[in-house]
Amino acid sequence: MEHPIHMPVFQGDQPLYLQLYQHLAREIQQGRPGAGKKLPSKRRLCTMLGVSMSTVEGAYSLLLAEGYVRSLPRSGYVAAQLHDVQTQPVPDLPPAPPPSSQWLYDCSTSAVDTTAFPFSSWARINKDAVYQNPGLLQPGHPQGDEPLRVALAGLLAQYRGVCCSPEQIVVGAGADYLLSLLLQLFPLGSTVALEDPGYPTAWSAVERHGHRPVSVPVDQDGMNPQALEQSGATLAYVTPSHQFPLGVTMPVERRSRLLRWAGQAPDRYLLEDDYDSEFRYASRPIPALQGLDHGGKVIYLGTFSRSIAPAIRVAYLILPPQLLARYRQVFPQSACTVSRFEQETLRQFLVQGLYSRHLRRSGNLYRRKCLIFTQALESCGNLALTGQNAGLHFLLTAPHLTEPEMVERTAERGICVYPLSRYCHQVPPPPSTVVVGYAGLPVQQLEHCAALLGLALAPITPPPGSEPPDAPP
Amino acid sequence: MEHPIHMPVFQGDQPLYLQLYQHLAREIQQGRPGAGKKLPSKRRLCTMLGVSMSTVEGAYSLLLAEGYVRSLPRSGYVAAQLHDVQTQPVPDLPPAPPPSSQWLYDCSTSAVDTTAFPFSSWARINKDAVYQNPGLLQPGHPQGDEPLRVALAGLLAQYRGVCCSPEQIVVGAGADYLLSLLLQLFPLGSTVALEDPGYPTAWSAVERHGHRPVSVPVDQDGMNPQALEQSGATLAYVTPSHQFPLGVTMPVERRSRLLRWAGQAPDRYLLEDDYDSEFRYASRPIPALQGLDHGGKVIYLGTFSRSIAPAIRVAYLILPPQLLARYRQVFPQSACTVSRFEQETLRQFLVQGLYSRHLRRSGNLYRRKCLIFTQALESCGNLALTGQNAGLHFLLTAPHLTEPEMVERTAERGICVYPLSRYCHQVPPPPSTVVVGYAGLPVQQLEHCAALLGLALAPITPPPGSEPPDAPP
Repeated sequence: MEHPIHMPVFQGDQPLYLQLYQHLAREIQQGRPGAGKKLPSKRRLCTMLGVSMSTVEGAYSLLLAEGYVRSLPRSGYVAAQLHDVQTQPVPDLPPAPPPSSQWLYDCSTSAVDTTAFPFSSWARINKDAVYQNPGLLQPGHPQGDEPLRVALAGLLAQYRGVCCSPEQIVVGAGADYLLSLLLQLFPLGSTVALEDPGYPTAWSAVERHGHRPVSVPVDQDGMNPQALEQSGATLAYVTPSHQFPLGVTMPVERRSRLLRWAGQAPDRYLLEDDYDSEFRYASRPIPALQGLDHGGKVIYLGTFSRSIAPAIRVAYLILPPQLLARYRQVFPQSACTVSRFEQETLRQFLVQGLYSRHLRRSGNLYRRKCLIFTQALESCGNLALTGQNAGLHFLLTAPHLTEPEMVERTAERGICVYPLSRYCHQVPPPPSTVVVGYAGLPVQQLEHCAALLGLALAPITPPPGSEPPDAPP
Repeated sequence: MEHPIHMPVFQGDQPLYLQLYQHLAREIQQGRPGAGKKLPSKRRLCTMLGVSMSTVEGAYSLLLAEGYVRSLPRSGYVAAQLHDVQTQPVPDLPPAPPPSSQWLYDCSTSAVDTTAFPFSSWARINKDAVYQNPGLLQPGHPQGDEPLRVALAGLLAQYRGVCCSPEQIVVGAGADYLLSLLLQLFPLGSTVALEDPGYPTAWSAVERHGHRPVSVPVDQDGMNPQALEQSGATLAYVTPSHQFPLGVTMPVERRSRLLRWAGQAPDRYLLEDDYDSEFRYASRPIPALQGLDHGGKVIYLGTFSRSIAPAIRVAYLILPPQLLARYRQVFPQSACTVSRFEQETLRQFLVQGLYSRHLRRSGNLYRRKCLIFTQALESCGNLALTGQNAGLHFLLTAPHLTEPEMVERTAERGICVYPLSRYCHQVPPPPSTVVVGYAGLPVQQLEHCAALLGLALAPITPPPGSEPPDAPP
């Protein structure tokens, strides 16, 4: 005998067949009809509900395919025997992270000034790259398309003294992604030496990939070699061009000492993160450590997210020969994570000379910003600056205050600076020091921001009313 | 006294200052001049070499910044004391992987027919998305921009019965990337149950992330629940809509049993990889397992690389509330790996209804391809097909041959099919069976390909000259 069913209520945008399916599936789950009992025939359901035969057939075919009903010859559909589905309450969604506070000035080290970017050229090249290359819908080379890798190898030889074949380059969607990929090439439980202070994200990435991070202190020349030698590490992560966050540059003597360390065992490597090497103000950009390496010991990591824009998710890893072989073994069938259209757009941007021109312009812009900002800060007195000869951030020290006082006082003025302690793991942070990025601050407002910082960090709290003039528009 | 230096030979494209720097750095490394000895003055070097002062200054400033020379007041530059740089021979590059052989027909399971893709609409939308949104150069939401996530949540509710908030979605550059991200949310050493046979890349990803993969056999209803219950796993990776590679669909009883398993411990989860759920021929698409989950136990993974094109690197992960909280804790400052311009292009493609239209058209195309191909194969006799009611591949069994014989014989005809054993870990592969994908084969050549397969897999080797007619153009 056919079992009576509750009538569904059709509402909303979903197709009727799907709504009918969901209604019947729910009914069967709740035992209406019970296991083995018949459902209405398709024709009868059409008449009952006033819907088309294709709606009912769509719903019944889903119920059949999913196993809610079985089809018996000459008796139509009967409900299947179902196990109880656990219906625990769904936990509430975690609260969304607070929106990035409305700072007057955020001195983030990862901000970039995109006003210098030749956006209309990029858009035009992108348009042509897409329209003219429908073939790029097909899978490309796992390491990134060869023409882009050839252009990158040329660019890196010219600008960074990097010596590599395009075959050694792996293009990927951001430096974090490529670091994750690289860490998967090392045996689980490898010891990785990290600069301290250094990038917190590198530390946590090493841990998440099942390796053992070891803190190695940074001195005025970069990673301390004695500590590295004692660390037992197989991989050392360094930022030789402009140490993050201290801003020191590694001299060649230290570089050669690190290379010697790496050369002393076959499985030792140096990872050179050249994150903001494009920008150097006191001298021309310093060639990469990679170019000094004659033993296949340096892995080089670079990105366009600072030199072009954060939203352009293209970074590149250069693997020495032995790690390249390991990469091909571990990731035999991976797909490149960067859209081939974006790869082709970037390639044209490079080979047409637009990138070089953009680097010159943005370098000049950042040099000017750095000069205005640091001069204004130095004129405040009582503040010491270090690491300002390169990159897009520097350290600011106010010897008469503690680090938390500095952060708190600047926050009261609406300015976000970053405590140096947040980049320290085991090394005690240099006292009274914060990290200040300036790339994202508008050039007209640098002096205003500096004046506010000067007031906030003055040795004696200034009397009320001693505000600097309003910021320029 | 000033030390004589070898004259540099300038050649190639590199700027002169860089060539001069490299030459002098090499000289100093080789002890010319020795430590503490003077280099020529800048002015003298200009005259000696016939280059401009800015060339010499560029080179000297690099040497100084890198520590090759020191600057002494009133005596100019002297060479620094350097350690020997190890100069082991660089290992040779590993041989490049062989180029994908020139198969007549490659029955890969990951190929896609991009001829059905409305490329000109995509290009037009992309052009507008870029030109009209220079603001997208700035960093976006780590999980992907909200408008895209809203569109995805709507699409998934309508097409897949997935029930989620846009807040739960994480957009990323491909399913492999998102699987890697997900695996980093579980404590190291977690036990992960994997379908056997199943995706080999999932197995190796689990291992690379420091977890323990466990093989769970697949029966005619999908992952075997008793074996799962005994596996000790906290995460089970399943493909309920169309098991890869067997092609079975998991009925609701099995789904509810897996959900019950997940509900029995607070840290148990199911990962539903819905990789090709868009394509189903015998019934309408089957709603996702995720939609049955009322306890926050199912993680859902989807991708556009099959339904749009392999080069569109956009996939999405839906995290249940507890894992979303963990994700925000583990990746507090990550950047989304998909270009914001591509995110906006995809969003418009979805909300303008172009994706729905494309799915209908490509679904019809694949249905037609499947029908032509499977009918042609069935007419060969002696061949059995399974799993052809959904997705873009099926299993082909030739009971009179071994699996290696099948692969070898088809290869002799220029056809690449995939041995089922390659997807098996501990479970013995069903005998005499290969995996055949057809999405990438041109529709006019399916009958020719089937005829060749029929000849290759015939019980008796056909006499010479029994070739099928030539392939259509």
